[in-house]
Amino acid sequence: MALAYDGAIQRLIDSFASLPGIGPKGAQRIAFYLLSAPDEESDRLVEAIREVKDKVMFCEVCGNVCEASPCTICSDPRRDRTTICVVEEPKDVMSIERTREYRGLYHVLGGAINPMANIGPSDLNIAGLLKRLDNDEVKEIIVALNPNIEGEATTTYLGRLLLPLDLKVTRLASGLPVGGDLEYADEITLSRALAGRRAV
Amino acid sequence: MALAYDGAIQRLIDSFASLPGIGPKGAQRIAFYLLSAPDEESDRLVEAIREVKDKVMFCEVCGNVCEASPCTICSDPRRDRTTICVVEEPKDVMSIERTREYRGLYHVLGGAINPMANIGPSDLNIAGLLKRLDNDEVKEIIVALNPNIEGEATTTYLGRLLLPLDLKVTRLASGLPVGGDLEYADEITLSRALAGRRAV
Repeated sequence: MALAYDGAIQRLIDSFASLPGIGPKGAQRIAFYLLSAPDEESDRLVEAIREVKDKVMFCEVCGNVCEASPCTICSDPRRDRTTICVVEEPKDVMSIERTREYRGLYHVLGGAINPMANIGPSDLNIAGLLKRLDNDEVKEIIVALNPNIEGEATTTYLGRLLLPLDLKVTRLASGLPVGGDLEYADEITLSRALAGRRAV
Repeated sequence: MALAYDGAIQRLIDSFASLPGIGPKGAQRIAFYLLSAPDEESDRLVEAIREVKDKVMFCEVCGNVCEASPCTICSDPRRDRTTICVVEEPKDVMSIERTREYRGLYHVLGGAINPMANIGPSDLNIAGLLKRLDNDEVKEIIVALNPNIEGEATTTYLGRLLLPLDLKVTRLASGLPVGGDLEYADEITLSRALAGRRAV
């Protein structure tokens, strides 16, 4: 009795199911979709995977992903070089860029301190950050990590580490998300919003 | 201001986002996962896609996917050749195989009648089914289509089409899903379960 698909299809389903956020049913759906899709579509996917693995590298300055190091942001003369925004992952750079409010530079740590997953400060790109602070150009570090336990721990660690330097170190405001509902805000978020209240 | 990623990463995100069930955030997550994954993992995915496109074909008898036609089920001498179970898609064959209750053959229509999507009987593999009924070997057709409007329409169509032939034509039972809750069953399912009630 055939309880798994013929070799090639099952291997494709397994490959997709091993990607984050895709379960066995979703992987099966994608495999059959690709099977029936025109060759150009599967070729485009294959080519995109190959291209990313061949071309994409990490910027030697900020640690962001790029196709030429230093990256387009680090080498852009119009960016404000006195401010560095520290984030966990390359995708966080994109989130902040989308606000169109920030004109400074970035530094990508590559994660956050997480003792449960055995990730300590030495596993993050913190040495690279300190090296960038060697000259006196940088005036402010904005720590923009995720508002969870790991992000908080890393923010505290960076705050202490940068304390001796003559720098303004700031963090993103905590509070109610815009468009949110007071009734559904959790207690911690609400008490942070209260503590950080501003004049109208 | 960089509002999209550098070329290669954005192309990979777009390629994944065009697959069914993957949204832009999921595609971004997968792209960064592949970027950091060992080369063997991305190579395995690329190879699996290539292999499926190169090797997998449709069985000339039943229309199921296979690597050699006729497929392993059609060419298995231990299967009961007097019964054909008609399904919409290759994945439905796998669902029925997983019950381990069915020992007959299959026929994959490749979809269901859907006037909204311009899919009529002639777009389905129905001619192939009739051809298989030319000899007198087949005694029963089990119509196992999805219990939705398209599946119902196709079941009705097949029922009428097969009526003149000397065949038992059956369909899957409708009723309460096992492990379900009477309170949450919809009215149509519950009335089908009532109509199809059986002696205890």
